[in-house]
Amino acid sequence: MTNTENSVATKAQSKIKLIWLQDSRAQRIVWLLEELGLEYEIEAYKRTKDKRAPEDLKKYHPLGKAPILIIDGHTLVESALITEYLVDKYGVQFKPAEIDTKNFLQYRHLMHYTEGSLMPFMLLALITIMIKNAPVPFFIRPITGRISDQLSKGFVHPNLVANYDYLESLLKDQPYFAGNELTGADIMLSYPIENAQERIGGWYNKEKYPNLYAWLERVSERPAYKRAHEKVTDVESNL
Amino acid sequence: MTNTENSVATKAQSKIKLIWLQDSRAQRIVWLLEELGLEYEIEAYKRTKDKRAPEDLKKYHPLGKAPILIIDGHTLVESALITEYLVDKYGVQFKPAEIDTKNFLQYRHLMHYTEGSLMPFMLLALITIMIKNAPVPFFIRPITGRISDQLSKGFVHPNLVANYDYLESLLKDQPYFAGNELTGADIMLSYPIENAQERIGGWYNKEKYPNLYAWLERVSERPAYKRAHEKVTDVESNL
Repeated sequence: MTNTENSVATKAQSKIKLIWLQDSRAQRIVWLLEELGLEYEIEAYKRTKDKRAPEDLKKYHPLGKAPILIIDGHTLVESALITEYLVDKYGVQFKPAEIDTKNFLQYRHLMHYTEGSLMPFMLLALITIMIKNAPVPFFIRPITGRISDQLSKGFVHPNLVANYDYLESLLKDQPYFAGNELTGADIMLSYPIENAQERIGGWYNKEKYPNLYAWLERVSERPAYKRAHEKVTDVESNL
Repeated sequence: MTNTENSVATKAQSKIKLIWLQDSRAQRIVWLLEELGLEYEIEAYKRTKDKRAPEDLKKYHPLGKAPILIIDGHTLVESALITEYLVDKYGVQFKPAEIDTKNFLQYRHLMHYTEGSLMPFMLLALITIMIKNAPVPFFIRPITGRISDQLSKGFVHPNLVANYDYLESLLKDQPYFAGNELTGADIMLSYPIENAQERIGGWYNKEKYPNLYAWLERVSERPAYKRAHEKVTDVESNL
């Protein structure tokens, strides 16, 4: 410990490794790391042929899901925990101050809401499509189609619309989800918002959700978002 | 403000209202409120005939889901936010100290994991049962059964087992999920653990999950858990 400067530097930025999976929630963590200006290494994994996470990921955590962040000697699992940890430790500017109760509580609400309430319906939307496209004899297809449609029309679709209507309403009077500044909540929500259109189609469009489209345009202009996009494109080309 | 004692009492315990729904995640918030020894009022709602939350709940929040906690002038939505809020403000004994990094991070991990990772598979398990039992002509039943079985065997069941194996492993060397003491993480996990057996059947049993069964027995002995149970039984009988 003779060189204090080195020692301080080590403390300020320990080695960070992001366990990243193709087409996954890990994308938004790259964006956050870029916003924070942290140095990090990406260990990238490709999805299997049937679109699952590879077994390899289990060497880091028994549930074998990405993203996983290895930082300060901890192995962090769950996107919202990773986001909270990074924001609390390296970027308090991405969290409303506690004194601003309304935005602070909205931030914490959204940290839970994104994966706890919204994403399950996104997963269900994928599953209804899977059921519809299941490889069955042609004379059975109308039946699998009907099951899929019933699930979709009766449950998944109305809930997705209600949830995106809710998100749209949050941006009525403010540019970001927890106030006037970008926070970790925006980063959490980027995944379902970026994926809404391509995953489900039709009901999600610019006319119905102008605030969400404007928000995505707004964040896409950020240099860190662009850098994250470039980084991911680069990582993907090497997979 | 002539009576300081009253004023302090008001500050220490503002009026709390829990918007409660039959057979829902709201149960665990009753338990937490009892653990904290807080006074609260329950506004109870019955599920509709098709097992949904009634439209009435939307008067409190556009998404119309329970639990909702009205406290200190805030309307809190998402079980984990409600739990964090109550623990941070009224019961720091139910949260590992930040200095105990391992348990502290495990607490925060589980606050996100419960609804973000585990509960979506519980929901999917219910949906596979719904598909299996869908009212279709008898000659189509083998097909709906096959779709349900494929979804269950190929995706839902292996993920449920992996998640409950993970929970079981967390209790290998400690009595509670984030260390030696009960925390908000145990309260969050009580809902999926109490419901594992009755909802899916078969694979979840005492031989396979002795730690989870012992944990449930342990928490069931707590006076606050018992009081919460009595309270809910009382509320249900008046629905």
